[in-house]
Amino acid sequence: MNIPRSSFPRIVIIGGGFAGIALAKKLRNKNVQVVLLDKHNYHTFQPLLYQVATGGLEAGSIAYPIRKVVQEYENFYFRLAQVKEIDTEHKKVIADIGDLYYDYLVIATGSKTNYFGNKEIEKNSMAMKTIPQSLNIRSLILENFEQALLTNDINERLSLMNFVIVGGGPTGVELAGALAEMKKAILPKDYPDLDVRKMEINLIQGSNKILDAMSAKASQKAEDFLRGLGVSIWKNVKVTNYDGKTVTTSSDLIFESATVIWTAGVKGAVIKGLHAESLVDRIERIKVDEFNQVHGYEDIFAIGDIAMMETEKYPMGHPMMAQPALQQGALLADNLIKKIQNQKRKPFLYRDKGAMATIGRNKAVVDLPKWHFNGVFAWFVWMFVHLFSLIGFKNKAVVFMNWVYNYIRFDREGRLIIRPYKKKSSQSFIPDEM
Amino acid sequence: MNIPRSSFPRIVIIGGGFAGIALAKKLRNKNVQVVLLDKHNYHTFQPLLYQVATGGLEAGSIAYPIRKVVQEYENFYFRLAQVKEIDTEHKKVIADIGDLYYDYLVIATGSKTNYFGNKEIEKNSMAMKTIPQSLNIRSLILENFEQALLTNDINERLSLMNFVIVGGGPTGVELAGALAEMKKAILPKDYPDLDVRKMEINLIQGSNKILDAMSAKASQKAEDFLRGLGVSIWKNVKVTNYDGKTVTTSSDLIFESATVIWTAGVKGAVIKGLHAESLVDRIERIKVDEFNQVHGYEDIFAIGDIAMMETEKYPMGHPMMAQPALQQGALLADNLIKKIQNQKRKPFLYRDKGAMATIGRNKAVVDLPKWHFNGVFAWFVWMFVHLFSLIGFKNKAVVFMNWVYNYIRFDREGRLIIRPYKKKSSQSFIPDEM
Repeated sequence: MNIPRSSFPRIVIIGGGFAGIALAKKLRNKNVQVVLLDKHNYHTFQPLLYQVATGGLEAGSIAYPIRKVVQEYENFYFRLAQVKEIDTEHKKVIADIGDLYYDYLVIATGSKTNYFGNKEIEKNSMAMKTIPQSLNIRSLILENFEQALLTNDINERLSLMNFVIVGGGPTGVELAGALAEMKKAILPKDYPDLDVRKMEINLIQGSNKILDAMSAKASQKAEDFLRGLGVSIWKNVKVTNYDGKTVTTSSDLIFESATVIWTAGVKGAVIKGLHAESLVDRIERIKVDEFNQVHGYEDIFAIGDIAMMETEKYPMGHPMMAQPALQQGALLADNLIKKIQNQKRKPFLYRDKGAMATIGRNKAVVDLPKWHFNGVFAWFVWMFVHLFSLIGFKNKAVVFMNWVYNYIRFDREGRLIIRPYKKKSSQSFIPDEM
Repeated sequence: MNIPRSSFPRIVIIGGGFAGIALAKKLRNKNVQVVLLDKHNYHTFQPLLYQVATGGLEAGSIAYPIRKVVQEYENFYFRLAQVKEIDTEHKKVIADIGDLYYDYLVIATGSKTNYFGNKEIEKNSMAMKTIPQSLNIRSLILENFEQALLTNDINERLSLMNFVIVGGGPTGVELAGALAEMKKAILPKDYPDLDVRKMEINLIQGSNKILDAMSAKASQKAEDFLRGLGVSIWKNVKVTNYDGKTVTTSSDLIFESATVIWTAGVKGAVIKGLHAESLVDRIERIKVDEFNQVHGYEDIFAIGDIAMMETEKYPMGHPMMAQPALQQGALLADNLIKKIQNQKRKPFLYRDKGAMATIGRNKAVVDLPKWHFNGVFAWFVWMFVHLFSLIGFKNKAVVFMNWVYNYIRFDREGRLIIRPYKKKSSQSFIPDEM
């Protein structure tokens, strides 16, 4: 990879998500050489992907060039690379662009969509973990409506207007809410010659409450908000298959739908090469100790979604969201320097700042450690927390302006099919075009 | 296409560019039924494509949903469709989504890149007429720099950093200027481990001046600005071929370049079905009379870039740019209504508002009909004219904010490879990914 050796130890970080970037920032101008690898040249602010998918924000507003983050850091290298394997014996990573030796390796690859082994669902449904995936969803939603106008087959039209979201976590809930608002404020005006009332949004949750990780109050309130917006919620229902046309479930319920968005699970984005004993639990995360050091290795660490740190309070590991990733990244920077200097390291202790989800205009739920609130105030809190968490002044300003505009005008102008999406399972009517 | 007949005559407009949208707006709530067809669901503000290509603006800032334009118009239909053929005998258009009868047909399909028959150049070079094409250029520029870091072959590295722009019209000039500014302000910071001084920007012009359609003064000043920014300008040189590696020319000059951007010509985006006599000149435009009525037809009209109206002052037709398109679109709306009511129509008379081009920060040239000026003031004029020409308040505001930010910070944050671009002629190192 053409990276010269320096007199300082080399730390290789795989992944520029919340964890990787937090670590990189705190390693700035320390006595180490840092190489950051990512398969994208930008950091993605994942909590707002659903707004890209529903046309509320542009992709560029929630992406930030990684090179700009590390632009003025000394002895710091970024490479656009997909890591294929870790060779722990020779202390190197093997990537599509070549090999790279490390002194210390940090795995911050995050998580990816978990289909629990169902290949047919994987092939036919949409995921929403990356910006290109979100743009695909945006294109597909709009293409469905264009197609619904054309067909004389009422069943096909209903299927095109039936959106099934599998998974009632924050992603599924926020997406369902955003779709419901499109149905209410935008689609009837855009498609006056279509009966948009026939559009269905079905949110399917396997357990007996949505926002399972949040308080009972938050969950109930979110459910009320969603139902008020016209979303149908199906609890205690598991999706068993989707062939591109029909969603079958563990109950008698079936859905005829052209669009299934799968937010029902995630698993660690594991890279091969670690001992089998380092991988734990059914969602393929990497077992780490309280210093985020990978079980069985002295020089390999894992942080963020991919890391499974079993603690008394979190026997199943920390929640797979931004906060633990940010906190682990920042702490590991200190601990790596300490380890290099043979100093005593500080164990990770998660500071739970709470959780929140937005359902729509003036509608959000917020769980602070000791306090729950919802409604307009929660919605403002949600907005400002997300605004200030975005990297970069310009992104903050552009997102803020979009939100003000969308709020005042009940509008979203990002309903653009820039890259048509072709379903693998069916013929699309959209012409192939550059 | 599922569009009910009304008691009013039906006007079908093919194309939602400057001409088609200007026409549609003025046909609002008149006693006609209007069907607007476009292969994209958005209007593209083409004069700013080069800023999307160089990361200064997001795609969504220069695109506007067509459905939003016509959202409240009565008896108005939009269909996302690619028209394949016009059946003038049966008065219908044949599109990928079905057939559609018309009473009056308006062809506003604009222009497309003209390779003058050279298939190899077409295959290996980049065009910049649409948003997806501009995003491809953006990705390719950034991919080139990522790749340049990796190679040990000095010739390959130089080739990756050599950008050849063919065509010294406004598009080529503005793109060359924007690339030169990236070279100056952004790339050295983003790629500290690369000698960015080695980056070359070569602008090749077939005639003896750039900005050929503008005044001698504007042309000379633009040339001075570009040279000042480090752009190499080659005049009286014609590109004869590009095999993906080497650009050959009519002179001894050759360029080893991984990236050729072809802005050397346009031709009418003609749809088959018209008499051969209706097509004129070597760039395949449609011959129209002073009412934009197509030669040989009573019910077919053409406006904008596709229309060739021979007048005393413009024997080769009007310039293929926004102003004639906007003016023809607006006038044709009145004239169609007059024709339907058997009233006397008004012939088109082009009001030349001048031309302008920006080369970079504080550097633009403006030709008004009787006055030329350049420099900082011209640059401000250029910005405000473009800002106010954008459709939609939000796009204006977002573009304005981006420009202020980019100006103050000497920065462009859109340097994101959202959809990697794969050259057809070579193996890309970027992994295939959703």
